[in-house]
Amino acid sequence: MHIICSDLEGVFIPEIWINVAERTGIDDLRLTTRDIADYDVLMKRRLSILDANGLKLKDITDVIATIDPLPGAKDFLDWLRSQTQVIIVSDTFVEFAKPLMKKLGWPTLLCHGLTIDAGGAIADYNLRQADGKRKVVQAFKDLNYEVLAMGDSYNDVAMLKEAHQGILFRPPKNVIDEYPQFPVTTTYEELRDIFGKVF
Amino acid sequence: MHIICSDLEGVFIPEIWINVAERTGIDDLRLTTRDIADYDVLMKRRLSILDANGLKLKDITDVIATIDPLPGAKDFLDWLRSQTQVIIVSDTFVEFAKPLMKKLGWPTLLCHGLTIDAGGAIADYNLRQADGKRKVVQAFKDLNYEVLAMGDSYNDVAMLKEAHQGILFRPPKNVIDEYPQFPVTTTYEELRDIFGKVF
Repeated sequence: MHIICSDLEGVFIPEIWINVAERTGIDDLRLTTRDIADYDVLMKRRLSILDANGLKLKDITDVIATIDPLPGAKDFLDWLRSQTQVIIVSDTFVEFAKPLMKKLGWPTLLCHGLTIDAGGAIADYNLRQADGKRKVVQAFKDLNYEVLAMGDSYNDVAMLKEAHQGILFRPPKNVIDEYPQFPVTTTYEELRDIFGKVF
Repeated sequence: MHIICSDLEGVFIPEIWINVAERTGIDDLRLTTRDIADYDVLMKRRLSILDANGLKLKDITDVIATIDPLPGAKDFLDWLRSQTQVIIVSDTFVEFAKPLMKKLGWPTLLCHGLTIDAGGAIADYNLRQADGKRKVVQAFKDLNYEVLAMGDSYNDVAMLKEAHQGILFRPPKNVIDEYPQFPVTTTYEELRDIFGKVF
């Protein structure tokens, strides 16, 4: 039996932090792992920026609620979920992703979490576990699933490698060059073609 | 972070085989593990009954498509999925469950599968793995989730025991008596109350 493990941002929805930066006008929130390689340092910086601007969880989720899934994403995901089981595996935080998961029809999302204080401010973040994407694929392999994984970037590579079949979706050129073993797709139609041959 | 692992039949939908027996008028399909304790023997018998009656997969799924989720199940499940991640863990077959999963809004379902031949007949069934319900809970514990599990019957007990918190929903009296460690619920409101205190 097959199961799909898919990345979220860049596959079904736009990049959350870039959109939050744009919509709040806080340019510092554009920082990514390209600017600050250490994710822990980056997240602490982001949370301190939110705090300095007096932004609580609800302010951020209100902004995120104005973001839409990528064009065609909902239709494709609806089709995929009617064909097989789909698990979305992300490095985002469940509280941030919520308004977008609602728009996507509440697919299952395995990701990280936030600690919210009594006043609704984001006190801290909690990475569920290190190397989380790969470990989700491993867990489903242990449950006797044939895992197909898809993602768009470096942080998906361990998951794609662990899966029986990894697929890149709209990856940057350096990822394509570095991992020629994965088929590269740029449209949901191409993904449908690949998955349609499998199940 | 929490995740819910829930049984399907008896919790969100009626018992599939009993309904198929009623709607096809084939009384022999009422056989359950109470009549034939060995699940393998029982399933082989069911498939031979379908075959003897010339019933193919589509005939069965057409019948199953006339079954509705239990009253209130969809609303409760919608609420639950808006609060946390929900994985449905069942001993049914994904092909049988499909029409009902559609009515439930495609929650993630981990269960068994069928082998369908070129003519659409059910050639065989494939148990994904032995002790599958408990192993799903174990897998999510390994992914650092706090697992709450719910089910209605004997075949859920291993899953409920493995979870951080097990909950019985509309269980038979002998299960209640034998496993007094699990809280017993009979309505979705009671489940909401329990879950509402957790997250």
